[in-house]
Amino acid sequence: MKNQPTSNAKALLESNRAYAQRFNQGDLPSSPARKVALVTCMDARLDPLSFLDAQLGDIHVIRNAGGRVTEDVIRSLVISEQLLDTKEIIVIHHTDCGMLTFKNEDLYARIEKTLGEKAGKEARKVDFLPFRDLEESVREDMEKLKQSELIPEDVRIFGGIYDVHTGKVEPVE
Amino acid sequence: MKNQPTSNAKALLESNRAYAQRFNQGDLPSSPARKVALVTCMDARLDPLSFLDAQLGDIHVIRNAGGRVTEDVIRSLVISEQLLDTKEIIVIHHTDCGMLTFKNEDLYARIEKTLGEKAGKEARKVDFLPFRDLEESVREDMEKLKQSELIPEDVRIFGGIYDVHTGKVEPVE
Repeated sequence: MKNQPTSNAKALLESNRAYAQRFNQGDLPSSPARKVALVTCMDARLDPLSFLDAQLGDIHVIRNAGGRVTEDVIRSLVISEQLLDTKEIIVIHHTDCGMLTFKNEDLYARIEKTLGEKAGKEARKVDFLPFRDLEESVREDMEKLKQSELIPEDVRIFGGIYDVHTGKVEPVE
Repeated sequence: MKNQPTSNAKALLESNRAYAQRFNQGDLPSSPARKVALVTCMDARLDPLSFLDAQLGDIHVIRNAGGRVTEDVIRSLVISEQLLDTKEIIVIHHTDCGMLTFKNEDLYARIEKTLGEKAGKEARKVDFLPFRDLEESVREDMEKLKQSELIPEDVRIFGGIYDVHTGKVEPVE
């Protein structure tokens, strides 16, 4: 098994070579063509560009655990709006999300058990932002954007839930 | 022009229908098959799944302005590692990044001018995390991960710079 890659990360980085060889979109402008920023989950089962049938260069894509609107997401959206002319934001959470499966307290205990007391203490400073209800979490995050002083009122905000079993996005009003 | 969509966001959400109709990967497990989490920029010119030649279900993808390792990114990576068995992290920044084009002070002034005094004051609480040197920013962010109490030492960390003109990722050691 001499030729087996020692690491998946290395193998992925190496497989970039083939992409670069066939790459022919090196002249796209830095502003997203559709003037849209999407906020969604890091989940491996989501391919936002595909599920919105968007093209390379069309939209900004911001992703974290859950697709939650955090300070860091607002930081990113402000840059997107102020410097790169984004005019609409879509927030999409998804079914079967890991964020539905735990409470902060569970994760604190688990981290303390697996990484030790010091890490456990560090973890307790973090709100991991789990949620119980998908529609509620999307609405809460849309509301956060509407309330933010840093997002202009004329930026339109949309919400949705992606179903990992059907590939379908149901809008959340 | 009756049939022109009133909003790009709406049009994107509508174009999801066609994706859902042809979707046939509804049974993927929630843990990423390659056990890798990628941290990269929200930039519309980056399609991480494509440029790493990864498949749906392979990797977690975390994106924000710059691909910076923030508290929110660490929150996401902890969930990815503790609950979804991620064992390697790749941090990729890119050439021609918007983050290379401003200083915090520029953005504070711009926000105050476009959104008013109250927003300007709010903005000054935020470090927008611009940077001057790509290799340095990648190394800084890799170092942040290595220093974090919440990322186990056996999680391997890789860095790279994606060239938006060539599609190539150059590794950063």
